[in-house]
Amino acid sequence: MAPSNPQPCDLLIEAGWVVPVEPHGAVLDDHAVAVTDGVIVAVLPTAEARARFQPARTVSRPQSALIPGLVNAHTHNPMSLLRGVADDLPLMEWLQGHIWPVEAAVIGPEFVSDGVTLAIAEMLRGGTTCANENYFFPDAQAATYKRHGFRAVVGLPVIDFPTAWASTDDEYFDRACEVHDQWRNDPLVTMAFVPHAPYTVSDASFERIRMLADQLDLPVHLHTHETAHEVEESREKYGQRPLARLDRLGLVNDRLMAVHMTALTDAEIDLCARRGVSVVHCPESNLKLASGFCPVGRLEQAGVNIAIGTDGAASNNDLDMFGEMRTAAQLAKAVAGDAAAFSAASALRAATLGGARAMGLERSIGSIEPGKQADLACVDLGQLESQPLFHVVSQLVYATGRHQVTDVWIGGRAKLSDRQLVDLDIEQLIANARQWRDRIAAVRA
Amino acid sequence: MAPSNPQPCDLLIEAGWVVPVEPHGAVLDDHAVAVTDGVIVAVLPTAEARARFQPARTVSRPQSALIPGLVNAHTHNPMSLLRGVADDLPLMEWLQGHIWPVEAAVIGPEFVSDGVTLAIAEMLRGGTTCANENYFFPDAQAATYKRHGFRAVVGLPVIDFPTAWASTDDEYFDRACEVHDQWRNDPLVTMAFVPHAPYTVSDASFERIRMLADQLDLPVHLHTHETAHEVEESREKYGQRPLARLDRLGLVNDRLMAVHMTALTDAEIDLCARRGVSVVHCPESNLKLASGFCPVGRLEQAGVNIAIGTDGAASNNDLDMFGEMRTAAQLAKAVAGDAAAFSAASALRAATLGGARAMGLERSIGSIEPGKQADLACVDLGQLESQPLFHVVSQLVYATGRHQVTDVWIGGRAKLSDRQLVDLDIEQLIANARQWRDRIAAVRA
Repeated sequence: MAPSNPQPCDLLIEAGWVVPVEPHGAVLDDHAVAVTDGVIVAVLPTAEARARFQPARTVSRPQSALIPGLVNAHTHNPMSLLRGVADDLPLMEWLQGHIWPVEAAVIGPEFVSDGVTLAIAEMLRGGTTCANENYFFPDAQAATYKRHGFRAVVGLPVIDFPTAWASTDDEYFDRACEVHDQWRNDPLVTMAFVPHAPYTVSDASFERIRMLADQLDLPVHLHTHETAHEVEESREKYGQRPLARLDRLGLVNDRLMAVHMTALTDAEIDLCARRGVSVVHCPESNLKLASGFCPVGRLEQAGVNIAIGTDGAASNNDLDMFGEMRTAAQLAKAVAGDAAAFSAASALRAATLGGARAMGLERSIGSIEPGKQADLACVDLGQLESQPLFHVVSQLVYATGRHQVTDVWIGGRAKLSDRQLVDLDIEQLIANARQWRDRIAAVRA
Repeated sequence: MAPSNPQPCDLLIEAGWVVPVEPHGAVLDDHAVAVTDGVIVAVLPTAEARARFQPARTVSRPQSALIPGLVNAHTHNPMSLLRGVADDLPLMEWLQGHIWPVEAAVIGPEFVSDGVTLAIAEMLRGGTTCANENYFFPDAQAATYKRHGFRAVVGLPVIDFPTAWASTDDEYFDRACEVHDQWRNDPLVTMAFVPHAPYTVSDASFERIRMLADQLDLPVHLHTHETAHEVEESREKYGQRPLARLDRLGLVNDRLMAVHMTALTDAEIDLCARRGVSVVHCPESNLKLASGFCPVGRLEQAGVNIAIGTDGAASNNDLDMFGEMRTAAQLAKAVAGDAAAFSAASALRAATLGGARAMGLERSIGSIEPGKQADLACVDLGQLESQPLFHVVSQLVYATGRHQVTDVWIGGRAKLSDRQLVDLDIEQLIANARQWRDRIAAVRA
């Protein structure tokens, strides 16, 4: 085809393989993605792209796979500053003896802002372009994500006891509405309600969340069915399992991102499927905290939308979505007793489009399709550990380390280029994390 | 202390932290390891080391942890050339429809040698210095490991049906004895018997192995209790579970490396503890093939020696012992229902000294102690993903990627230096793997 009247575009990314996620499992050899004004305008064979477009900038990666930026659908990113502060402990000892005393001493906007910034750098270096955030001080979180051009759904916390963020129910809701109002219509940072968990939020607060979420059109991001103990406690206290109680309160619908979801009956899985609930699976957190096993194979068969999250770096102890995808794909098979359950393609979809759908962002991110935001990651499959290369998607999920990510874009803006963070000073981030380590160690001394 | 009469040594490695594994859980800040003639001669504070030794070469890594080289206690390294050739399939379909037909077309000394060489490069780049090998053509394996200065226990295969390696029982044993004899007393490459599995080896062959292993003082490396199905089949065929049958045949003793070991009763765990059996845990393979869950927490409590293996790259799909340690430490907790089970220190010990003990090499490798071989790996903990750093062992197991390994020594000889393979041409290895991919793809076409 002769190049006649080429069309300008901002950026053309040529890759050995484009893995668009939609259609499911597709791998497009020697394809390119054209971007203008932060939006994907075309996905086409590289040879055609060269003829059709006149790009302001071209990035050529013939040994790499271009994938949608990974979506970390459950994080507590400020807690990156607590990575590995305490491990190998029973949950309550870990929380009461270690995490909460440290948080009480250091929590505040500075801790939140510095923790989120460290997390952004770690996420970018691992191909993650969007985080579903769950912590206090959403105002500080939102400002930090915005400042660094990182896409996030920031959680508006509600919990039945006083914290550094708010003291009473009314204050939690007032502050939530205030922060939501401040960030309304932002293209990069959106909001969700984050009631902490069924055992720390009253019926009255859940009903208020239900009403506000409907009015403001916000998702609801909730830890639930994390352990069998939680389910049993709910039965004792409310006479209902958590999901049944949430259903009574009107929350079991397509706004709900239900995080963890171990200890599920078939009827509960059916309910989630019928109501369009998204399940956010955090396999490594569930394993490490001995929480239980999420029945991913059964959820997938029932047609439930599945997303993947790393949980906080204090419990997991990283924000590595490649590791989390791999663990999810491996673990689902043993839990289902079926080596064909939750394929590599399913895990990659959950870590991209599944997360986007859970967060209500499936029209703008999660796959490489014209009209979507150019949130993209380039993964080097030319390294020794990726040889021989028979199946790109299998290699991405089962044999790729996050350090193989070379380039990342969010809304078409380069954030990682040839392994270098474009607008963050890595030495300064490391130095800052070391200062926090000293401050936290002093609290614990 | 004034340096008076410093002692010569070949190599002094100064590290921010030395993690010797023995004593269990120890972390030595700002320590150094002195090496002469391939053997560790001292482990001491760096300041003292500088006064006491006059090294021919010094490697200084103030931001790194120095650990014993990792011991991969169950591999099929020639199968590295089949990485990702088929995934997400039920076990029998995977074997019969994919792996076996490909192997039938390509297996031989060249496939074995090239696969092992690719695996050696991958292992070195991930801090692994010793492999417990389980495949055909042990002669070609042994020669390849020796040529590249890589420590291995090579398996002498026995299986009840003809393969490219041998046709009859007698031929398997003749060839085994021949290869053993050829490699007797080699300091780097030793041998073990590898009867394939209880369902593919007859009582008569097991008895012969028991006798020869005693006479030649060799370990026995065996897949067993891999699945509940295997256990049930053994009950049907022999009226005994596999371990009971092996016990009747005299094989349940401290020579036995029992690989996989899901579906275990408390009595079987006690038996393994009393007899000194080593269990080789392959968590990612067990998950991905939906084999079952090894009860690592109960095994550890019973005092059973635990080692860790990646299994072959065709099933897993890598030889990443950092990933495997992390999965082992995480998974054990969920399986035990106890977040304190199988700590980071226990996982690191299993991946080093536990493997060495299983393979009968605990007097020469597996920990950083004077008198042992200098099989060592340096891990950069100065990277962003390792910040903040509260606990070195926790960070190594829960938050370290294999790409953070910068330097590796085997018997004091540098094999990886500043991320560069010392005596392997990585571009040539990648090109060779691509040729094999084309040959294998042609077989499958």
